[in-house]
Amino acid sequence: MTEQLRPDGSLRHLLTLDGLPREKLEQLLERAQQFVTPLGARPPASRTLAGFTVANLFTEPSTRTRVSFELAAKRLGAQVVNLEVQLSSRVKGESMLDTVYTLESLHVDAFVIRDAEAGVAGLVAAHVAPHVSVLSAGEAHLSHPTQGLLDALTVRQRKGRFAGLAIAIVGDIRHSRVARSAWHAFRTLGVGDLRIVAPPALMPDAAEFAGCARHTQLAPGLRRADVVMMLRIQKERFGSADLPDGEQYFAAWGLTPERLALANPEAIVMHPQPMNRGVEIASAVADGPQSAIRDQVRNGVAVRMAVLEEVLTSTRIA
Amino acid sequence: MTEQLRPDGSLRHLLTLDGLPREKLEQLLERAQQFVTPLGARPPASRTLAGFTVANLFTEPSTRTRVSFELAAKRLGAQVVNLEVQLSSRVKGESMLDTVYTLESLHVDAFVIRDAEAGVAGLVAAHVAPHVSVLSAGEAHLSHPTQGLLDALTVRQRKGRFAGLAIAIVGDIRHSRVARSAWHAFRTLGVGDLRIVAPPALMPDAAEFAGCARHTQLAPGLRRADVVMMLRIQKERFGSADLPDGEQYFAAWGLTPERLALANPEAIVMHPQPMNRGVEIASAVADGPQSAIRDQVRNGVAVRMAVLEEVLTSTRIA
Amino acid sequence: MTEQLRPDGSLRHLLTLDGLPREKLEQLLERAQQFVTPLGARPPASRTLAGFTVANLFTEPSTRTRVSFELAAKRLGAQVVNLEVQLSSRVKGESMLDTVYTLESLHVDAFVIRDAEAGVAGLVAAHVAPHVSVLSAGEAHLSHPTQGLLDALTVRQRKGRFAGLAIAIVGDIRHSRVARSAWHAFRTLGVGDLRIVAPPALMPDAAEFAGCARHTQLAPGLRRADVVMMLRIQKERFGSADLPDGEQYFAAWGLTPERLALANPEAIVMHPQPMNRGVEIASAVADGPQSAIRDQVRNGVAVRMAVLEEVLTSTRIA
Repeated sequence: MTEQLRPDGSLRHLLTLDGLPREKLEQLLERAQQFVTPLGARPPASRTLAGFTVANLFTEPSTRTRVSFELAAKRLGAQVVNLEVQLSSRVKGESMLDTVYTLESLHVDAFVIRDAEAGVAGLVAAHVAPHVSVLSAGEAHLSHPTQGLLDALTVRQRKGRFAGLAIAIVGDIRHSRVARSAWHAFRTLGVGDLRIVAPPALMPDAAEFAGCARHTQLAPGLRRADVVMMLRIQKERFGSADLPDGEQYFAAWGLTPERLALANPEAIVMHPQPMNRGVEIASAVADGPQSAIRDQVRNGVAVRMAVLEEVLTSTRIA
Repeated sequence: MTEQLRPDGSLRHLLTLDGLPREKLEQLLERAQQFVTPLGARPPASRTLAGFTVANLFTEPSTRTRVSFELAAKRLGAQVVNLEVQLSSRVKGESMLDTVYTLESLHVDAFVIRDAEAGVAGLVAAHVAPHVSVLSAGEAHLSHPTQGLLDALTVRQRKGRFAGLAIAIVGDIRHSRVARSAWHAFRTLGVGDLRIVAPPALMPDAAEFAGCARHTQLAPGLRRADVVMMLRIQKERFGSADLPDGEQYFAAWGLTPERLALANPEAIVMHPQPMNRGVEIASAVADGPQSAIRDQVRNGVAVRMAVLEEVLTSTRIA
Repeated sequence: MTEQLRPDGSLRHLLTLDGLPREKLEQLLERAQQFVTPLGARPPASRTLAGFTVANLFTEPSTRTRVSFELAAKRLGAQVVNLEVQLSSRVKGESMLDTVYTLESLHVDAFVIRDAEAGVAGLVAAHVAPHVSVLSAGEAHLSHPTQGLLDALTVRQRKGRFAGLAIAIVGDIRHSRVARSAWHAFRTLGVGDLRIVAPPALMPDAAEFAGCARHTQLAPGLRRADVVMMLRIQKERFGSADLPDGEQYFAAWGLTPERLALANPEAIVMHPQPMNRGVEIASAVADGPQSAIRDQVRNGVAVRMAVLEEVLTSTRIA
């Protein structure tokens, strides 16, 4: 495993939230909160990262996450280059590492990497020059650390604390990088009652999600929860006997207003998007008064600004 | 229909020129004119829109229009993100509205939307937050309002007036959003002698283009015109008995120097581009002394700067 | 041939290094050297090109070269628009020239053009307005002038001179624009012992590469060379009797540490990238102490900054 922290404790890479100390998470959330602006106000703009260059290296399409990182970098004054790797160099057989070395020589200071396979961001992090940082923007089913941070920031804003909260993560836990990063964040930040709620086919192996209560029925999983975090279910999951189709999934597992009523009356609902409305979540919930889904998106830019600022401007080893 | 003007009369959205008051069109043209610079001079650059973010949301490819909006926004200091929707989120089944809500939460202030289907920009405009604006960059065969404005600006520059002018719009009127927006603009601005000139198969339904004289022969349509606005004809139109192929179309409908001589000697020729040289227009005309085609392109940036400035900085309801 | 120099001797276009005077090459290298910064330091940033717009018009994918030009332009304060021509206007049958006229009217000041066919950049250069410049970013197998400059800059940094050097260009000379531009540069700059080294099937016609010694065996070609410039070999070349496959190519022609030992002990190794590791070059050489490959990439931005500055800000004929 590549070390994510520098000797002085500052963040150099962000590949996973697993193993990051609580103080580091709290510091990043605190800084991100300062970048949050209400909808309709001008977002903060600074020149903190003027002269720095950030490369988005995405091997699977993700408009939302790419644009979120792009705007975070630009609003701090950095220059951004976008590369969809499968469309360009990769067709020429160039290895990812040679691409990265090339960009490093072009004075790219931070790589934002998203890949459907495991290990790519870590591989890059293990090989870049000491002054270069690597941020994961989603790695296989394993982790999506800035998503975990924005989820934590959303809970912090709405609930003001982590201790004493009951948080239910619901849906396709097994294949979800969002669930894994949320679990790392919430566990580290001291959430006591953390539940994973899924049909057996979507439940992760027993060795994973240590410390989480497991529910294979929706109702008991939601009961008195303060936070209900829904996950996106991929259409590809349907077709087996356990998961016949989206309609039946919704009938058994969709979050409707009635089911949400099982949770704490002040519970908030989260979803990483994009949503399958009418499959894992009803529109009445997604757009309803308990939804914090748009806050999550807004918090995403703030969190990415905080992370970029930290990796690029805290003690640099040049 | 979404209201395009705010209560104070300022422009909030630009979805169509249909129904916009004459004073608003004249004001936008007047402002656009101030942004026009001669070829070879540095274009105006300001920081008026610093801190604003504009998203280009194109679902059909259009290099020219996308780049024109992009440069207009950047030359006013705005940040721009480009999204080709079919290539990213849409493949994941995400609805356009969820994409827009997401971008709104990322502090996007204006959406520039181009779609081959009708109603998308209007749907978005009906749902965005009060401080957000939507600009159509082309909607089905129905409208292309900034094209209508740049066409009007070109006529204004070259002719100095609208009253008393004879303007002939020639070609595939039936399927043309350019023709419809030009018609809205010229009618509102007081052009008296407005003609649509097309073979019967390309003539719009009788209920449309109220107030226009109709010509199904080219010669009488061109006679003594002050402005000849040619349209692009899509290759797909050819193949029926009425429109056998491009060569025969050119023989009957192509604008040659000889035919242009039927118009006023000082007539100008316009075309929205891209041109099918040798189909709807001869190169000798396209590149000839009466051509205002490159002025149209230059005016396009100026018009888009004026519109972006108006929707983003006139009275804002935050 | 389009004239590349203005009457006052300043560079207007850069389509080929062929025919550029030695003083012009030396001046560009001298200026580029001032833009070079060590890895880990902030690259130079200036506003020299503020208000200028550069369009990258690439008809074949090339991440490295496109990003290198993009960062060069942005670090001088210019605005950049990227167009992949085959994906947008070209599908609509629009000719390259109409695209260029359009962009010119949008106040694009410089076109960076890459095309797999010969003549496109020259055609554009012959038609743009007097204040507009055209830079080739790679033309068929014929030329890649900024690559030639960055190769020369790399040799200049490492060797401090050109006279008296022995430079071996090794590999698929026949199909290589990199080899041709390097030949132009090194010949003009006074390299005396310039060698092309290739199997007969990859050797260019006898009329080309005047003044170069020819070697169809690797060992004598490398002997006592001060610079070994390896070329990329395309997979498509393999399959004939002469060039059975990549493995056999490596056995006969791959640059290994043992073979490199034939060259001068202080010899440097260059490669334009992307590399086929294990085909034309061993990783031990590519990543070894004699490799100047990453310097080449870094020098690429510096050279492109120097060229953009020269064409856009030296005497302008507006």
